[in-house]
Amino acid sequence: MLAPEKALRSILENVPILPPEPTALSDCAGRILAEDIRAREDLPPFDNSAMDGFAVITEECRGASQRTPVRLKVKKTLRAGSLAETELRPGEAIRIMTGAPLPGGADAVVMKEATSCEEPATVRILQAPELGEHIRRHGEDVGAGDLILTKGTRIRPYEIALLAAQGILRVRVVRRARVALLATGDELLEPSRPLTPGKIRNSNGFALAAALSRWNISCVYAGIVPDDPVLMRKALEKSISEADVLLVSGGVSAGDFDYTKTLLEALGLRTVFWKVAIKPGKPLLFGLWRGKPVFGLPGNPVAAMVCLEEFVRPALEKMQGFSPAYPSYHLRGRLENDYPKDKLRQQYLFCEVSEGPKGFQVRLIRPQGSAMLGMACKANALALGPIGVGLLRRSTEISFRWLK
Amino acid sequence: MLAPEKALRSILENVPILPPEPTALSDCAGRILAEDIRAREDLPPFDNSAMDGFAVITEECRGASQRTPVRLKVKKTLRAGSLAETELRPGEAIRIMTGAPLPGGADAVVMKEATSCEEPATVRILQAPELGEHIRRHGEDVGAGDLILTKGTRIRPYEIALLAAQGILRVRVVRRARVALLATGDELLEPSRPLTPGKIRNSNGFALAAALSRWNISCVYAGIVPDDPVLMRKALEKSISEADVLLVSGGVSAGDFDYTKTLLEALGLRTVFWKVAIKPGKPLLFGLWRGKPVFGLPGNPVAAMVCLEEFVRPALEKMQGFSPAYPSYHLRGRLENDYPKDKLRQQYLFCEVSEGPKGFQVRLIRPQGSAMLGMACKANALALGPIGVGLLRRSTEISFRWLK
Repeated sequence: MLAPEKALRSILENVPILPPEPTALSDCAGRILAEDIRAREDLPPFDNSAMDGFAVITEECRGASQRTPVRLKVKKTLRAGSLAETELRPGEAIRIMTGAPLPGGADAVVMKEATSCEEPATVRILQAPELGEHIRRHGEDVGAGDLILTKGTRIRPYEIALLAAQGILRVRVVRRARVALLATGDELLEPSRPLTPGKIRNSNGFALAAALSRWNISCVYAGIVPDDPVLMRKALEKSISEADVLLVSGGVSAGDFDYTKTLLEALGLRTVFWKVAIKPGKPLLFGLWRGKPVFGLPGNPVAAMVCLEEFVRPALEKMQGFSPAYPSYHLRGRLENDYPKDKLRQQYLFCEVSEGPKGFQVRLIRPQGSAMLGMACKANALALGPIGVGLLRRSTEISFRWLK
Repeated sequence: MLAPEKALRSILENVPILPPEPTALSDCAGRILAEDIRAREDLPPFDNSAMDGFAVITEECRGASQRTPVRLKVKKTLRAGSLAETELRPGEAIRIMTGAPLPGGADAVVMKEATSCEEPATVRILQAPELGEHIRRHGEDVGAGDLILTKGTRIRPYEIALLAAQGILRVRVVRRARVALLATGDELLEPSRPLTPGKIRNSNGFALAAALSRWNISCVYAGIVPDDPVLMRKALEKSISEADVLLVSGGVSAGDFDYTKTLLEALGLRTVFWKVAIKPGKPLLFGLWRGKPVFGLPGNPVAAMVCLEEFVRPALEKMQGFSPAYPSYHLRGRLENDYPKDKLRQQYLFCEVSEGPKGFQVRLIRPQGSAMLGMACKANALALGPIGVGLLRRSTEISFRWLK
């Protein structure tokens, strides 16, 4: 059976990167920039004060101190948003607020706290300023024409701020993936329906959509399709035409009524792989249909969610321009209990991790199963039982990641 | 000046937890459950097969192996979603699909791979099953009446799945915070406007809203209010009436036209603190007005964003029922360059962190300033320069967190 890291690699080799689209700045956060951006203007656009205080000529204030203050005539007050206009002349200071333009002639700002104003229209400078002190020079942060953001940058709030400050309100970013999701299985009822004998409620629609929405991906849930080739074909054709990625849960095992794979192949799916050496999630199917990635997820809800997080998420990240951050199991803890795992498969083990005096302690929940949602809800982490290991032994180390 | 950890503590002591509201399951992901939930039904709701295979009576299959197969008459096929109906009798097997109800009389399922079917209507069992093997017993995961989720639980996709499986499509969760944001300053222009002398574009509206939206919090941006007490009063009154939290950027320093604090206090703000020993962000103001938290953020965009992440975010998390996860600086790296910091303040330092052979290497960007967005966009991390330390020296260790 295919090793999980090979499965992931072939997914990432096969999924396309979505095209860029011009996008309003308000919709760009968390997305990947698809073009280089050059500054249109200097930032700051003009010399201005970094403090509330007094614009001065440093030469005039030489030697100023608490004991030997320098007295200057306060000519006017410059507030932020006003024009500098006046020129500072020897013997003068101009009261200036943070962000106000520096008047001509001034070459430093003395902050308010280093002055005193006992007489009207006069300021006493109590500390000699350095040349250029508390002045923000135009273009000191960004110069017009500078390459400020490069293609491939993830747009964080700081990038949003920089673009807004430059008046750039529309940029090209990689399109968000649209995902279509359908569930198959004659045993399934929508969760709003009362349970009848032999049936279970389909939880995958709600749960997979919730996970996708937390990754800022919208998902069209196409509902439950019965195990009937004609109805399934219709639903599959509709879903693939509306989305960039198709997720089908259920019907991918080897049962007599598991039509998903055969039907998709009859419709033109190029299967890249079917079945991976993992537990839960073994029947995972991946292929391309009309150039679009298709995942056949297990119907069991715990297995479906594990496959979504481990295999579908990296695919969606790559499609949206990210360097996929694989679910990382770089945390390590010590097992509190034995667990007999499947030696031939990599096992994703639901566990309760707590912080002990010697680091993390990992208690594997027993029993666990691919349909046991109550079990999964008790876990705060997922541990990784490697291929080749049968019995996981108490007090040995294991890798895990938090379940968020 | 107030130490940052004391400021954060008094914020968390003063902010209210928002009331719960009945919420559709599709809108519950990532929120905090405000009630205990008991199971309505057993999960699974009936005994069923965990495999595609054959339902058998273990007693009949004793000693079965490749060499000594046990032949059973295949009575019928049970697919998922059908009713069990028939009773299994000695000498018989029932072909059964994953999820199909276990027929009466059967006490194990032999998976397909451990059988062969050379003759029609006959199956050869090649491996003796254990009692109960591959059977999922009704209620083995969840029993009706069990406490399945407790008040205070963060609703992940697994909890969504469990609730959907139980047919529980509406639960009480803590309400999401509504944030109103306004910017003050005569120097500000909306980013869509062309720049005129002495003016800068307000980037805080876009950037703070982007950060909030990534935390799933909606923000009403009330625009730019000029430094005019009458207009400001009107805007503040309107914003506080519409939101749970008010953020005002700008006008919180000690300048002659910094009306935010005095005006809010005249309107009834109870100031909890003003000014924190941090850089950037010193003028941070926090108080309660009509019982609602109000933050006066610095107008400089880098400082505003740092205050939002360090102080506003934990407040919003607490209000929404979370145990606030403070921005954690638990990563450590070695400084690549000296940096003369303000000894009296905790400094948030924009840096470029890379992974070297001996761990993380931290290059502090120079110069940095509270208005330097170009600088901030070059950083991938924020390092913490502690109070009491003046010069940060090359090759010493420093704590940092990623900027995401």
